[in-house]
Amino acid sequence: MIDKLIDRIIEFKNPSVVGIDTSLDYLPQDMTADVKDFKSAADVILEFNKGIIDSVCDIVPAVKVQVAYYEMYSVEGMFAFRETLEYAKKKGMIVISDIKRNDIGSTAECYSKAYLGRTALGAETDCAFPSDFVTLNGYLGSDGIKPFIDDIALHGKGAFILAKTSNKSSGELQDLTLKSGETVYEYMGGLIARWGKDSIGGYGYSDIGAVVGATHKKQAADLRAQLPQTFFLIPGYGAQGGKAEDLAVCFDNRGLGGIVNSSRGILCAYKQDRFKAESIYKSARLAAIDMAGDLTEYIKIKR
Amino acid sequence: MIDKLIDRIIEFKNPSVVGIDTSLDYLPQDMTADVKDFKSAADVILEFNKGIIDSVCDIVPAVKVQVAYYEMYSVEGMFAFRETLEYAKKKGMIVISDIKRNDIGSTAECYSKAYLGRTALGAETDCAFPSDFVTLNGYLGSDGIKPFIDDIALHGKGAFILAKTSNKSSGELQDLTLKSGETVYEYMGGLIARWGKDSIGGYGYSDIGAVVGATHKKQAADLRAQLPQTFFLIPGYGAQGGKAEDLAVCFDNRGLGGIVNSSRGILCAYKQDRFKAESIYKSARLAAIDMAGDLTEYIKIKR
Repeated sequence: MIDKLIDRIIEFKNPSVVGIDTSLDYLPQDMTADVKDFKSAADVILEFNKGIIDSVCDIVPAVKVQVAYYEMYSVEGMFAFRETLEYAKKKGMIVISDIKRNDIGSTAECYSKAYLGRTALGAETDCAFPSDFVTLNGYLGSDGIKPFIDDIALHGKGAFILAKTSNKSSGELQDLTLKSGETVYEYMGGLIARWGKDSIGGYGYSDIGAVVGATHKKQAADLRAQLPQTFFLIPGYGAQGGKAEDLAVCFDNRGLGGIVNSSRGILCAYKQDRFKAESIYKSARLAAIDMAGDLTEYIKIKR
Repeated sequence: MIDKLIDRIIEFKNPSVVGIDTSLDYLPQDMTADVKDFKSAADVILEFNKGIIDSVCDIVPAVKVQVAYYEMYSVEGMFAFRETLEYAKKKGMIVISDIKRNDIGSTAECYSKAYLGRTALGAETDCAFPSDFVTLNGYLGSDGIKPFIDDIALHGKGAFILAKTSNKSSGELQDLTLKSGETVYEYMGGLIARWGKDSIGGYGYSDIGAVVGATHKKQAADLRAQLPQTFFLIPGYGAQGGKAEDLAVCFDNRGLGGIVNSSRGILCAYKQDRFKAESIYKSARLAAIDMAGDLTEYIKIKR
């Protein structure tokens, strides 16, 4: 699946992904006026998501859908989550489910079935929340990751595992130095490379990638040097403070090696003064084009 | 909420929790014969769960419901998950949602609303998946935990954060030694104690507890000595190999300090030869009584 993602990035000359982390606050008041329960909240979020997907699907390679924003609205929210994944897929986008799941092996098997594989219920029933990639947390070590690796190989999927996250307190654990001299995030990077070594694609990158925040330039540069075959999912651009010129360290000399996420910057573009004259969805499209322009000023993608 | 859990443990003289990690394989064939899709799978799982809860609710203080087993069956599974939580609550049990969620602050807020708090939709709509406790993963540091701490204080809830997990590969990261001389799990233990220091209850334990596997006696003993105010959720008993005599190190001289989970040992008790003459649910009850007896042989709970 990593080759398919990179193909699309090259085709669109756009190493970015739109984060569909749709908070009700992001929606214009006229859309939320009648929202009173989980069902009505989920309905307007889904409507908004479809508008965003329609407006970017021919210029942005992928969406990253953050499940927490849907779990909050219970079963009804999870319905909107599933519909969002399926709609993006139908529109030709690559779908990353941002779930950061983690557990012991037998439980990880369930999660893997839920997002990448399928249950034993028979062909009639497809995957619960069909995704091309998931995000994972490796705190439990190999046996919590193995079921995903198996489904990735079997179903042509991929994963991004947390190495160095974009949030302020990420260093509390991740930046600590081990007795060996490595930091925790470097050690985790090493595990990720090991987990990915049997699924290197045509561009030299593995189906098992890493999450590396755009907000920590030094750490990102370290990880890029350490992990030449690991593709990065890069959150933290824009609203969280990450800049294109800084995160360019994540990319190789072909302009490949990562995909940069923006959520609020795209979903809430219509609130910006410069897009005052535009519709919600047109604003999102223009912001996505701007973002691609900003990134490719520093990241030169070669065919 | 930790005081309420300890009250119940003392009342029942039973420091155990039943894990409702209901795999379809656990059910007898006559229950699953007509299962053909997510909806029918979720329906029989819910029916089974209710039977288990009915059979143990007057002798076991709490249930731990592992969400992965429900996510696997998509929206329909999440409905069964919610109904299971609500049924256990109605039967007077304390409900632990085993979700191991983790993310950056703004996203952690959504997860916290989903399980412990509530959205801004108004009084009419309660919490998405109402739980008394959740399990969390602290890899992202304080700002991913803070929203939960706030909801725990506001709504009288609790959490167990991963320190040393029960699985075989848990040591790959968790047992590494830091430059400071501490192991990663000890360092995480220190964070957990810090996160919990403002919510110490009447028994001297905090609403913010730790997950400490029953399968690693030395590490459990280290953590107990290091964290006198941290209550432990202890998975790994029984099917995973943890023994009562080993995990007794997690308890103080009042017989308090932890709650031990068993899933398969209770749910699948009816498959054991010794319960051949009993119904599914009666077997579960007898196995739960046996487990309480086994634990309290080594853990002496004083009133």
